[in-house]
Amino acid sequence: MRGAMSAEVLPLRARGSQPTLAPMLALTAPGMNSVNAVILDRMQSEIPLIPALAGHLISGGGKRMRPMLMVAAAEVCGYQGTRHHKLAAAVEFLHTATLLHDDVVDGSDMRRGKAAANIVFGNPATVLVGDFLFTRAFELMVEDGSLKVLKVFSKASSIIAEGEVDQLTAQRRIETSEEHYLQIIGSKTAALFAAATRIPAIVAEKSEAEEQALDSYGRNLGVAFQLVDDAIDYDSEASESGKDKGDDFREGKMTLPVILAYARGTAEERKFWEEAIAGFRTEDEDLAHAVKLINRHGCVEATRERARLYAQRAIDSLSIFPAGAAREAMCEAVEFAVARRY
Amino acid sequence: MRGAMSAEVLPLRARGSQPTLAPMLALTAPGMNSVNAVILDRMQSEIPLIPALAGHLISGGGKRMRPMLMVAAAEVCGYQGTRHHKLAAAVEFLHTATLLHDDVVDGSDMRRGKAAANIVFGNPATVLVGDFLFTRAFELMVEDGSLKVLKVFSKASSIIAEGEVDQLTAQRRIETSEEHYLQIIGSKTAALFAAATRIPAIVAEKSEAEEQALDSYGRNLGVAFQLVDDAIDYDSEASESGKDKGDDFREGKMTLPVILAYARGTAEERKFWEEAIAGFRTEDEDLAHAVKLINRHGCVEATRERARLYAQRAIDSLSIFPAGAAREAMCEAVEFAVARRY
Repeated sequence: MRGAMSAEVLPLRARGSQPTLAPMLALTAPGMNSVNAVILDRMQSEIPLIPALAGHLISGGGKRMRPMLMVAAAEVCGYQGTRHHKLAAAVEFLHTATLLHDDVVDGSDMRRGKAAANIVFGNPATVLVGDFLFTRAFELMVEDGSLKVLKVFSKASSIIAEGEVDQLTAQRRIETSEEHYLQIIGSKTAALFAAATRIPAIVAEKSEAEEQALDSYGRNLGVAFQLVDDAIDYDSEASESGKDKGDDFREGKMTLPVILAYARGTAEERKFWEEAIAGFRTEDEDLAHAVKLINRHGCVEATRERARLYAQRAIDSLSIFPAGAAREAMCEAVEFAVARRY
Repeated sequence: MRGAMSAEVLPLRARGSQPTLAPMLALTAPGMNSVNAVILDRMQSEIPLIPALAGHLISGGGKRMRPMLMVAAAEVCGYQGTRHHKLAAAVEFLHTATLLHDDVVDGSDMRRGKAAANIVFGNPATVLVGDFLFTRAFELMVEDGSLKVLKVFSKASSIIAEGEVDQLTAQRRIETSEEHYLQIIGSKTAALFAAATRIPAIVAEKSEAEEQALDSYGRNLGVAFQLVDDAIDYDSEASESGKDKGDDFREGKMTLPVILAYARGTAEERKFWEEAIAGFRTEDEDLAHAVKLINRHGCVEATRERARLYAQRAIDSLSIFPAGAAREAMCEAVEFAVARRY
């Protein structure tokens, strides 16, 4: 679809200038007030543990990236209504549910810079409140009443769940290929971004081409975002992220920096990776060694380079939409996502 | 609604005769073949762990009670179509997802007479495959395409999730009242039974009265079923159930037999219960003592007596439907559910 309706080329910002989220934040501020009101209203329950645990994560420094992208996508579609506010809350609830279950599955200690919900409330409550948010997400989608939206959302949720299981299966398996890794992040991360940005086009009754363009924007941004996330976990120059640095390493996750370092490594280095991914090298000095190997072979930069390719695709997808503040903000948000170091 | 459209009284079977599931099994056999085909087809995935883990539970001796009730409810509505087969598979997937998460939450060892999925596959895989079945349930519901059905189903799923959290909150709390207990089982168990039996009435385009009648049938049967389940865990005359006997006791679950034994107990007995529910009495001899106290005060029989009240309500709900094999089978299934000792 890209380029079919426009010859315009939207280049990635020139090296040196600093993309920011400011235009996106300004564009979406009014819409996000409404979305946040729905989120706060609909995470309530007569069972006090539910808002307590959900609020721990939801109020806990989340960027609300997916709802923000939905508000921006509604803008770029020229949508004047408010249906997407409830739908954006639903997407955030689904995302929050997956984070809660991820933290149980990974035994995480930290999330968004503070103790993870499973640490504060225990695994049982975290699993069950995750389930609750999941059902609440579907309730909100059903309330909206569009079967077309429901199809996109339920399909995405099922792909995410499959991707999570696929990731678990690939864990501690040194033979995981780059292709398999891309498939995993396409499912576990990019599918929800794609649904999030596609749904406003459906609500705004835009053409199939515009729906697909926004799907492509979200999907490619999602892949780029996850690639950068995975790069940061091994980036010696990156500041602390919200999660514990080295989590991926200790959990034996086969992310792209490791896949590349293993492919590019010497026999001795490969032996190290085999032991590390199998779970026999979990000390701080092992992590430091891993970071050294990954940087020796330029694997953080190579991962970021791939992220920039997907970012360019995301930006190109928007060329069928009219130029203006919404499209500009969505492009700069992509640039921001791939340039970030935290 | 009961009795409004008919003066007929459908009594519980006289003491002494043995109700069986045979009429229900005969009535639903053809429909269940189709439901089972959907279940097997839709639990597939390219990620081998998904059918392996889901199949462990789904093929593992489940009674498929909810799908069976849906097929029977479709019959009593005179429904000639096949839409309820897919919807019944969706209900079974949702139920299976909750069982998988329950087993993780409770740290169960056994389920349906064999090792629980969390023991065989680990907690992470069990949580994530539960999520997958959950999303697949919604996909099937969305495929059917009825917003009215989706509303009933999504509302029920959210009530179930709330009930599960509520149960967790009540665990190890000796002060849990009978009323609170009834609310918990109304949510965690009866809500899905009610949705299951209501949905065929919607699909068959029956009147609101008939929808409500089948909702009431499922809801009351669900409460009765759970009461009997909870009684059996302390019934010295009951044969082994599929789960470990004494699980409820060791987990500090405040089920009705315990609530009654605590209310009826001496000061010394109450002290025992306080220690046991708090988790300080988990030996086999403690369980034996608990069973003795519960039976001394007739609490298994009192729990069963309450179950019979709900069972009678379930049966009465059906009086607006025409007499015939379907209604007879649904009545006898209720009697069977409350009379069972395993």
